[in-house]
Amino acid sequence: MSESEPESEADSDAEGIVVVLPDGSELAVDADATVEDCAYEIGPGLGRDTVAGKLDGDLVAKEEPAYDGAELEIITDQSDEFIRVMRHSAAHCLAQAVERHYDDVDLAIGPPTDEGFYYDFDNLDIDEDDLPELEAEMEAIIDDDYEIEREEVSIEDAEERLADEPYKLELLEELAEEADTVTFYSQGEWEDLCAGPHVDSTGEIGAVKLLEIAGAYWRGDEENTMQTRIYGTAFEDESDLEAFLERKEEAEERDHRKIGNEMNLFSIQDVTGPGLPLYHPPGKTILKELEDFVETLNQDAGYDYVETPHVFKTDLWHRSGHYENYQDDMFVFDVGDDEFGLKPMNCPGHAAIFQDQSWSYRDLPIRYAENGKVYRKEQRGELSGLSRVWAFTIDDGHLFVRPDQIEEEVERIIEMIFTVLETFDLDYEVSLATRPEKSVGSDEIWERAESTLESVLEESKMDYEIEAGDGAFYGPKIDFGFEDAIGRVWDGPTVQLDFNMPERFDLSYVGEDNEEHRPVMIHRGIYGSYERFFMVLIEHYEGKFPLWLAPEQVRVLPISDDNLGYAHRVANEFDEFRVEVDDRDSTLERKIRAAHDDRVPYQIIVGDNEEEDGTISVRDRFEDQEYNVEIDAFREHLDAERDEKRTEPDFLQDE
Amino acid sequence: MSESEPESEADSDAEGIVVVLPDGSELAVDADATVEDCAYEIGPGLGRDTVAGKLDGDLVAKEEPAYDGAELEIITDQSDEFIRVMRHSAAHCLAQAVERHYDDVDLAIGPPTDEGFYYDFDNLDIDEDDLPELEAEMEAIIDDDYEIEREEVSIEDAEERLADEPYKLELLEELAEEADTVTFYSQGEWEDLCAGPHVDSTGEIGAVKLLEIAGAYWRGDEENTMQTRIYGTAFEDESDLEAFLERKEEAEERDHRKIGNEMNLFSIQDVTGPGLPLYHPPGKTILKELEDFVETLNQDAGYDYVETPHVFKTDLWHRSGHYENYQDDMFVFDVGDDEFGLKPMNCPGHAAIFQDQSWSYRDLPIRYAENGKVYRKEQRGELSGLSRVWAFTIDDGHLFVRPDQIEEEVERIIEMIFTVLETFDLDYEVSLATRPEKSVGSDEIWERAESTLESVLEESKMDYEIEAGDGAFYGPKIDFGFEDAIGRVWDGPTVQLDFNMPERFDLSYVGEDNEEHRPVMIHRGIYGSYERFFMVLIEHYEGKFPLWLAPEQVRVLPISDDNLGYAHRVANEFDEFRVEVDDRDSTLERKIRAAHDDRVPYQIIVGDNEEEDGTISVRDRFEDQEYNVEIDAFREHLDAERDEKRTEPDFLQDE
Repeated sequence: MSESEPESEADSDAEGIVVVLPDGSELAVDADATVEDCAYEIGPGLGRDTVAGKLDGDLVAKEEPAYDGAELEIITDQSDEFIRVMRHSAAHCLAQAVERHYDDVDLAIGPPTDEGFYYDFDNLDIDEDDLPELEAEMEAIIDDDYEIEREEVSIEDAEERLADEPYKLELLEELAEEADTVTFYSQGEWEDLCAGPHVDSTGEIGAVKLLEIAGAYWRGDEENTMQTRIYGTAFEDESDLEAFLERKEEAEERDHRKIGNEMNLFSIQDVTGPGLPLYHPPGKTILKELEDFVETLNQDAGYDYVETPHVFKTDLWHRSGHYENYQDDMFVFDVGDDEFGLKPMNCPGHAAIFQDQSWSYRDLPIRYAENGKVYRKEQRGELSGLSRVWAFTIDDGHLFVRPDQIEEEVERIIEMIFTVLETFDLDYEVSLATRPEKSVGSDEIWERAESTLESVLEESKMDYEIEAGDGAFYGPKIDFGFEDAIGRVWDGPTVQLDFNMPERFDLSYVGEDNEEHRPVMIHRGIYGSYERFFMVLIEHYEGKFPLWLAPEQVRVLPISDDNLGYAHRVANEFDEFRVEVDDRDSTLERKIRAAHDDRVPYQIIVGDNEEEDGTISVRDRFEDQEYNVEIDAFREHLDAERDEKRTEPDFLQDE
Repeated sequence: MSESEPESEADSDAEGIVVVLPDGSELAVDADATVEDCAYEIGPGLGRDTVAGKLDGDLVAKEEPAYDGAELEIITDQSDEFIRVMRHSAAHCLAQAVERHYDDVDLAIGPPTDEGFYYDFDNLDIDEDDLPELEAEMEAIIDDDYEIEREEVSIEDAEERLADEPYKLELLEELAEEADTVTFYSQGEWEDLCAGPHVDSTGEIGAVKLLEIAGAYWRGDEENTMQTRIYGTAFEDESDLEAFLERKEEAEERDHRKIGNEMNLFSIQDVTGPGLPLYHPPGKTILKELEDFVETLNQDAGYDYVETPHVFKTDLWHRSGHYENYQDDMFVFDVGDDEFGLKPMNCPGHAAIFQDQSWSYRDLPIRYAENGKVYRKEQRGELSGLSRVWAFTIDDGHLFVRPDQIEEEVERIIEMIFTVLETFDLDYEVSLATRPEKSVGSDEIWERAESTLESVLEESKMDYEIEAGDGAFYGPKIDFGFEDAIGRVWDGPTVQLDFNMPERFDLSYVGEDNEEHRPVMIHRGIYGSYERFFMVLIEHYEGKFPLWLAPEQVRVLPISDDNLGYAHRVANEFDEFRVEVDDRDSTLERKIRAAHDDRVPYQIIVGDNEEEDGTISVRDRFEDQEYNVEIDAFREHLDAERDEKRTEPDFLQDE
């Protein structure tokens, strides 16, 4: 609430303050009221149940003072945020258990996460076999129901108490720059420098489970010490924990790194470098199908493909503004007196191509497409499989349009996105991301851009959320998130408006009025990053790709060596498909098992009977089988199933 | 001739030496005999005609001493090499002319080239308008028929004579490390430090022509001073010079940079960086057709596509040996403690993929293909259009084969190469390149590799030359050179055997004997570099691409605005092709001219007559035209012309 706003009904008196409750109502309280005091002011029951609070969206301890104009939410054990508070306390139990069992351990940090908590330790020599013992100790601490006490401490006293904790001292040094006191939380014999909030006693923590041990750099910086991170989780009761562990196992089963390895899709190797995937033949086959699919969509939508280098003189990045905003994420090197950089984005290259010609209003919109590899220097500790990499390919598109063409073009792009989402049967969510702190361009330009996207979204009748401050530095954007089979959301398609880059590149076209005009640039990706999309697909399908994507579409299994010749003749009948003959010296049962493990959509089984009749037996991924199938009939079905990009092998499922 | 060989018939006596003549015969001469003495020994006529000699392939002055065992060839004005000697002398005339007209010029170097000669100068302020004056001065020097005299000079005397020539002094310093004397050549008042050879007098130089002025770094190193290079050429007579100038003009007409700009195929821009082409839509269209063509060939030949990063940790390049041998040509940079490099070759990435799995002898040959971009740090002064770039894409293939599969696989690759050469109607020459000085691997391995390639070439009955020492550092290779329409030869397809990389990567497969065996690696490119191949094609076709490659295949020209609707309906009938409608407000004549200038293979002209009959008029690139053509008939023809990749539009040429 800003000072210039009209005074509210329930105005604060000279000594009081006013907070705003979630229902919009206002509450007048004493000037020194804490979050808990406010709760008691609402009602004594709520006061007693208060675990923590949210002030202007930030989770804080109930002992924290409220302030005038703050939006206040009271957190009880009925709130969604309660589990976060409880997990934070569980992290403390973990650290307490560790310090009971190991000497001379240095504590680093131990926050709650979306799926549990972790605590980082230095000088801790431990492996996963040791986790059950620690888990038992945590359970004992919970059973002992220690009171969790909060204490405000001066910086000097804190320094003394933390004399043996080098990492905590480093944190304290930073906290000392902002306040004169810090808070400690203690439970039993154990205490920790911590801002909280926490539950009232260890007994309030439900079911806990320690999950794994990993290395983690202090403060995520690979220049620092590698510490030992113990991951765990906590739930209110055993049944919630069990359900979580089942979901986790499911996620591990679907993990694209595991399936990628089983199916020989890709590798990331020590010798070749981190975050730099190599696509093996089956993986590249899938990527090529994805490329071809989006190429068809692009061609139908009037895009022209271009190709730009992966390396540019940094002059280009200065001109585009990326250097200023993206420098830390760029790989750069010198050649002679010039600096060069691997491209973090494809747009400036496309702008340079557009700029190389003169254009009339009749030529617009110009639509460039490129499967463009970009490079972003993520922290090495953050890299993971295909989801977080150094080099990834965007199915990038850049449109140069007249202002009167923006809405129609954005609508068309959203249609393309729907086609893709439907083809892969993916759930999604939509957001409109607005101006971030680090950005270029005038307020007026940003407002125009944001309101254009908003009106397209309104017209499309899609549900969407506004993500304030999440836009690109050059303009606002509509982002689609893919929701995968186990409910996680991944960055997907994007449509971004850009009124800035055309200024920076001095792009122009000659209008009907014979004057020079500035085009608007639209950035868009349908898959977004191929790497991330590939990851989503692997996990979405559990590697059981639809026929059109499957690296091996059909496998012919001869029942015995006598049928090998016929098997190969049959395979030739399917040479429009990716077909293999299993000619190994093995039993039919084993061959069926192998084809199933390899996730081949269809098996063709041929023995003496089939050879005599000139037919085949067809078996699908669901273990259904049909005998006496005519070769032509099956091939016609396969043609249709592939060309229509059906998501499941349905030759035997239709009937 | 090695010492261990049996003594020859015409053996040298104690004081004499023996040289070997081109016909294989041997000539005994005095121990101190010069090249010219040897010529006189053969016959006095030849002695008198001698201009220079070749000793073991090196062009030398006739005053140079022969040595025992040398292969000697006498150069007269009837020899192919004579023109090189004469051009070298013409370069001297240029420098003499320059020093007559400009004060305080510093001389650098002035060698003959394949097409003429150049001389580099520092402190010379000159532009192309000044060339005729210099050319006239050169002609005067030639008319004056100065004797060209050779003089042997001590290092000290040379230093004194060159006191005012800083670049010559720098050269002298290096020469002084190898010999006690150097040679000077003088003509009239002018002299130069020079090894020769030269013609006897300036009058022996025929017709000269100065061509252009360019900047050139001293010693080709961009860290050094930029000097002024004057290019010229010389021929024995005016008619040869005229013929050359015509060919040169033809080459300039065909120059891929000029045509590339006219057709909007690609650009190389200051702001984006040198040697880094951006492909515009028409250029990318052609590239994609080329990619698709080789993809079809690869798929038929059993190749699997893979995709590897452009950046690798240099660990990989140490393992492959590239770091040792290619370091100076690599773009490298540090990330944290690790060094990374842009890949100069695709092979180590493919080896890393092969290595990631275990293989049986039954799996081999494994054939990987990738349109792989590679990066080589050429001197910036050497970069030119698409022919010399920093980043280029190879249609790369790597095969991992059993030793018993080498010959068959090399033969198959050569078949693929023939298919491509025939499709594009390109002439070619073939060479076998053997072990270079900088190389890895044992003598035995190299001998095996070279003899295998030689036997494949022998069996194929192709003419080929042996290029001694021109192999890759890891193995010998068969290189194809494309001969373009004006007789220039460009690097093209290549097949390289590699017994070394498999050792370095410890690649293996399990043989029938259940033991581990080492596969052999074959590197191959069919086009070679897409950039260079594209350049060859642009110049080969003069931008008049065959239908299947043409960025715009058909253009529909409505005779008047009244026919615009019909024009678009006709265009829709050809939507399987890259078709445009010229809907500009212009005369038919101008539209025909524009389509011709844009090198569109076919124009469809539609007016009221065509609209009434439902037919079209077809006009081709050769300006032939036919009326009353049925749409279906023309489309059927186009289908066939495109699918058969015919080199010329032949709808009207067949009839």
